[in-house]
Amino acid sequence: MTKSIGVIDLGSNTARLVIYQQDEQGNLTEVDNIKRSLRLSNHLQNNRLDDDGMAITLTCLRQFKELLDARQVQQTIGVATAAVRQAENGVELLERIKAEAGITIQILTGEEEARYGYLAVMDSMNVDEGITIDIGGGSTEVTYFQNRKLKESHSFPFGIVTLTKRFLHSDIPTEAEFTQLRSFLADSFASKPWLKNKQCPVIAIGGTARNLGKIHQRSVHYSMDSLHHYPISKENVTSILEHIRILSLEERRQVPGMSKDRADVVLSGIAAFESLLSYTGSDVLLISNKGLREGVLYESVWGAEPPATGSELHAKTAAQFMNRYHIDTIHAQHVKSLSLSLFDQLGAQRLHAFGQEERELLASASLLHDAGRSINVYESSEHTFYLLSQVLMAGFTHRERLLIAMLASYKSNKLLLGQISRHADIVSKQDKNLIEKLGTLLLVSRMLDRSMTQSIHAVQLIKTNGSYLLRCMGKRTDHLEYSLLDEPLIKFSKAWKIPIAYTAVADSPKT
Amino acid sequence: MTKSIGVIDLGSNTARLVIYQQDEQGNLTEVDNIKRSLRLSNHLQNNRLDDDGMAITLTCLRQFKELLDARQVQQTIGVATAAVRQAENGVELLERIKAEAGITIQILTGEEEARYGYLAVMDSMNVDEGITIDIGGGSTEVTYFQNRKLKESHSFPFGIVTLTKRFLHSDIPTEAEFTQLRSFLADSFASKPWLKNKQCPVIAIGGTARNLGKIHQRSVHYSMDSLHHYPISKENVTSILEHIRILSLEERRQVPGMSKDRADVVLSGIAAFESLLSYTGSDVLLISNKGLREGVLYESVWGAEPPATGSELHAKTAAQFMNRYHIDTIHAQHVKSLSLSLFDQLGAQRLHAFGQEERELLASASLLHDAGRSINVYESSEHTFYLLSQVLMAGFTHRERLLIAMLASYKSNKLLLGQISRHADIVSKQDKNLIEKLGTLLLVSRMLDRSMTQSIHAVQLIKTNGSYLLRCMGKRTDHLEYSLLDEPLIKFSKAWKIPIAYTAVADSPKT
Repeated sequence: MTKSIGVIDLGSNTARLVIYQQDEQGNLTEVDNIKRSLRLSNHLQNNRLDDDGMAITLTCLRQFKELLDARQVQQTIGVATAAVRQAENGVELLERIKAEAGITIQILTGEEEARYGYLAVMDSMNVDEGITIDIGGGSTEVTYFQNRKLKESHSFPFGIVTLTKRFLHSDIPTEAEFTQLRSFLADSFASKPWLKNKQCPVIAIGGTARNLGKIHQRSVHYSMDSLHHYPISKENVTSILEHIRILSLEERRQVPGMSKDRADVVLSGIAAFESLLSYTGSDVLLISNKGLREGVLYESVWGAEPPATGSELHAKTAAQFMNRYHIDTIHAQHVKSLSLSLFDQLGAQRLHAFGQEERELLASASLLHDAGRSINVYESSEHTFYLLSQVLMAGFTHRERLLIAMLASYKSNKLLLGQISRHADIVSKQDKNLIEKLGTLLLVSRMLDRSMTQSIHAVQLIKTNGSYLLRCMGKRTDHLEYSLLDEPLIKFSKAWKIPIAYTAVADSPKT
Repeated sequence: MTKSIGVIDLGSNTARLVIYQQDEQGNLTEVDNIKRSLRLSNHLQNNRLDDDGMAITLTCLRQFKELLDARQVQQTIGVATAAVRQAENGVELLERIKAEAGITIQILTGEEEARYGYLAVMDSMNVDEGITIDIGGGSTEVTYFQNRKLKESHSFPFGIVTLTKRFLHSDIPTEAEFTQLRSFLADSFASKPWLKNKQCPVIAIGGTARNLGKIHQRSVHYSMDSLHHYPISKENVTSILEHIRILSLEERRQVPGMSKDRADVVLSGIAAFESLLSYTGSDVLLISNKGLREGVLYESVWGAEPPATGSELHAKTAAQFMNRYHIDTIHAQHVKSLSLSLFDQLGAQRLHAFGQEERELLASASLLHDAGRSINVYESSEHTFYLLSQVLMAGFTHRERLLIAMLASYKSNKLLLGQISRHADIVSKQDKNLIEKLGTLLLVSRMLDRSMTQSIHAVQLIKTNGSYLLRCMGKRTDHLEYSLLDEPLIKFSKAWKIPIAYTAVADSPKT
């Protein structure tokens, strides 16, 4: 039985409803996602939400409720952040929402908000030490984590809407306005000395972060359609800011990648990223597509403890993918074990000097090579490449995702070279050697379980005067696999530049 | 409950096993596909299959049986063609297969073989009149159909393997060899005067046809990964043949797109296509990816009557796609009815002069627009485009598939222009106007059922001095849909160059 879960994030800038389906194994699939730009921060007058703000929020929540009912959602988790937290009549609003829309919403403290951002990052990125910054409409949450453990956190009572309102009044902000904004931000971050000079990646969460990532990707014609884990250097953050802060609002709206309903407030957010990067002495900003609402969801489904290591996260991601795209787990695990056994034996024979990193890429590709079959058996390698390169794989960098996608879909050098040239900004011709070697290795392993019945259970690589012999141990010596093994072995032999043949060995009958 | 069906095609050149899953609605999904190049024709000595041919066939069928058992296939349909049909000991072979591999294989007559090819084409192409040619290793089946009804058929007792053996002995075939081959082919086709000067498309079925399609696609860097329904002009068939017939076998193997295990026999097959095109006075060859085994399968599942019209075939394809990619049928049908209503009203207001063809594209796109959600909700438009352009949609030309994919995934002109430039060999900048207009129309219709609850049941387009009003009839006036309608309406207004607003009208309470 699957279960539907709704998460409502009533933010200071945006209200969002996301609906997930959870299957019996605990895997989550997003099935709907609706966003409305309510700008509650703008409806805060003297720390009270005005009538108009109350009315649009109530209408929005009634509409969300309609959708929740239509989708037969069993469990809804609602959270509200800065605007409602800061409003004296915030509790009154939530009571009316409860009464009129039947939805329970909980006000998060700044600390809770910060922790959810950290949790979302731990569940979706392989970073051991870092600083998160989640800038919303009316508050900014910052955390510091080390060895994947939350060490510090703080919520600043300003966000893009309130910063803009306070500092940036001109259509093209003046130097003076900007100087004041920057000095305010610098002072604010300096009030938390645990941030100082940490020199670790800064991970940016939230709509402004995503928008900055999109603007940068458009400016460099980035080859991947993925924001999560996208890195932007400190220099590039600064140069984008310098470029767009001298534009009028109308001009800013036209910047490729700019989100239309954010163009008026985006400057203050990017300025905050820049200021934090300076103070922490960090040279890279990583964009996170996962934030508060994912943190809230993950805690509710998986508990408050994120994966303890990057490897644990990778395993979780592979499991989710295998489940989502209906991969035969037993076959996938068997191919993985054959691949790694071959990898290790080739290493022992000094036929490669690859390390743990390459071994893990091969392991992931072995588990996921059949993903494309869920789209179609015909051209399934191409579909595998599409899925692994286009659908988020939490915990992997873009480069890792592409390498895994190329390995998992490896069929021929022609296909590979096309993939490399399409993503020449992320992978390089130098990677061809790695992919071709491990790709043909995986082809052989896949063919050794072509029937998906694990008839061939192990392989031994034996060196016999200048040539290599692959001893395949199976139930019998006439399996389908052997009739089809020549072609992948020829490719393998070419890639590794070694002569190789196979021999089929039948299990000895039980005595 | 799904059911698995295996189809075995024991051909003169290749033995193939394809496994399909059939769901309760009768929809078929291919789940496995294994081919072995047995070259039985070469094992025919004095009309008897030699011992070696018997042995490799038996081993192959035992391996197929292993796979059928592993996949728990309930029903297996086996057919054998020319090589077994022509062999005096063919029945003996089938008896041994039955005894040793437990598979029942039926020998098809040439007429049956021809009819299955015709059936496969009728179930997968929207062509009213045409000639099919299925050239195998040891026989060639030709049919003529009119108004989608089979009129004539014949099986010639030659195929690529036997033609090559008889005529093309040199590494680079000599002029004399080629002249003899051509004159033999011309005489053969001339023996069936019903083929003469029909001037309708010739549809080429089988491995040689696919290989020819691939070679041509590679030579022009074709932008789509699809062979089915790929057209090659008569001139291009001739020029490919002229180009490769002066190459040695080794050089021929290197021709981009050439299938390695077919390079030795492909010439005679292409010569047969050329000869048939001449005799029928046809100027185009359409490649069919569907042939004998699909015909056998379709007849077993859907009966011997193919869809009577192109529209019926399109409807069947849409239903299969909706089922395969888990599209919410009620929502899709509702969006289709809103789209077509808007289309007709815009036409009545003389705001467009599109006809039935464009209306049908819009209808298909409306039904299929949510396909991408099966891959991921995030970036689902991009996934919709991928699926509709990369996965075969039976009954549509490549151009129609791309136009439907662009309509169904329409989000912005930026996305559209990227799609057009990627497929500039099939669609053109002139198509932008059509796609933008119908694409924004579909965006509006989709938003009108954003909640997928059919709350807004109808729309009326009203002209009010120079401006247009979209009257939306729904259960209430405060549906979620209305809060989100501005953005698609702005895009619609830009594309159609008309000012337009909407008004929400609530159903009158029952009296």
